[in-house]
Amino acid sequence: MTDSPVIILVQPQLGENIGFVARAMRNCGLTELRLVRPRQAWPNPKAVAAASGADEVLERAQLFESTAEAVADLEHLYATTARRRDMVKAVVTPRQAAGELRQRVAQGSPCGVLFGPERTGLDNDDVTRCDKIVEVPLNPEFSSLNLGQAVLLVAYEWFQTAAPAGEEILPLGESRPATRGEVENFFDHLEQALDASGFLRVLEKRPVMVRNLRNFFLRAQPTEKEIRSLHGVVKYLSGHRFRTKKDREGADI
Amino acid sequence: MTDSPVIILVQPQLGENIGFVARAMRNCGLTELRLVRPRQAWPNPKAVAAASGADEVLERAQLFESTAEAVADLEHLYATTARRRDMVKAVVTPRQAAGELRQRVAQGSPCGVLFGPERTGLDNDDVTRCDKIVEVPLNPEFSSLNLGQAVLLVAYEWFQTAAPAGEEILPLGESRPATRGEVENFFDHLEQALDASGFLRVLEKRPVMVRNLRNFFLRAQPTEKEIRSLHGVVKYLSGHRFRTKKDREGADI
Repeated sequence: MTDSPVIILVQPQLGENIGFVARAMRNCGLTELRLVRPRQAWPNPKAVAAASGADEVLERAQLFESTAEAVADLEHLYATTARRRDMVKAVVTPRQAAGELRQRVAQGSPCGVLFGPERTGLDNDDVTRCDKIVEVPLNPEFSSLNLGQAVLLVAYEWFQTAAPAGEEILPLGESRPATRGEVENFFDHLEQALDASGFLRVLEKRPVMVRNLRNFFLRAQPTEKEIRSLHGVVKYLSGHRFRTKKDREGADI
Repeated sequence: MTDSPVIILVQPQLGENIGFVARAMRNCGLTELRLVRPRQAWPNPKAVAAASGADEVLERAQLFESTAEAVADLEHLYATTARRRDMVKAVVTPRQAAGELRQRVAQGSPCGVLFGPERTGLDNDDVTRCDKIVEVPLNPEFSSLNLGQAVLLVAYEWFQTAAPAGEEILPLGESRPATRGEVENFFDHLEQALDASGFLRVLEKRPVMVRNLRNFFLRAQPTEKEIRSLHGVVKYLSGHRFRTKKDREGADI
């Protein structure tokens, strides 16, 4: 059995859209596509072109004669709809559906998400087949998505449920964060140069100016490599007149 | 000033893609589009066709000769990239970026998100212009999105930050949740019919069978209208032999 939800397209009209769906699925780690009576012949070269390399999803796609057959082995089913139906059936967002799907699938329960034909959407009988309705929160004055985009948003939310709980990342390349000692050493160098240049000549303003500069440079979270560059900047701007402690110790800057 | 982030497309290649971008923006309540040297003549009828009605975004789009000019009035800038650059610059997800953008914009700070040309993405100078990098978490083996899809995901996350914090919704149409009294009255009717039919004939099993049935019907959160239908179902299945309390009181079922 699959370890991710099945995407079921009911009577998709254009092969191209099936290709976009395959691409969006592959972008988000989904692999199992089922097609209920596609309107154009299958396999479809336009689908392959639009899939931009997600051929595997297309090759593995299964054809069915009816929605009932396409979903017969699934235990939990979601219907995607663009407009609210006159039905007493739970409505969830793609994000909520993704969380539920992740849980169901982890419990070994086969799940699927149904998408209707491009122009009309799912008919009411197919919506009724499903446990819940997925509605994408969008601008109510302009909420129509094409089929590929609708699948992308649902698949994207599925993928996000597995992504590490987003902390901001600061890639450091081959460097590492500068140590406080390295930063202090740079501040010494900078302030020595600024004192000599006359920039810090007003003594009563000096402490707050120094504090502001230190805060500015620290806020940038300098790497060890950047601190070395900054030493060079100060050294060259001040005409090599000042030597850091490291200089005196013979370090190569 | 705008109350939502500006989308800036740097040297977009195809008018069609600009149209898809406009559609995705309008889907998600974004209105301000800026174009830096689009490769095809502007305005572009293919953009209008692909925008599927998001004409207003296209009509308001502004043209610029350089990225620097296009972003000159903005205070916070995000660069979208598909591949990790060799830069010491914070990397966030679209969801994180959307949260930050929402906060900045609420504080009155004009913000923008940069997208590069379809084939190559943003060049390093344009990435350097930005405060942070936005990377969409996607299948690392297949992470290429087209321009319209990339804008859609960023715009979608923007819109979600304003959406009410998703509770599952159960639309009740013109009905209302059944009262406990109405539900009890139905259970009475059902059990009376089941007793008479012989279904509950094994006395020691009766309590657990009744409890299971009650749990089943309650789990469906019946509406008042559904309870009336269920009365009808039981009444007709049992050949009209049983009358509910409401019947006896003359209610119309």
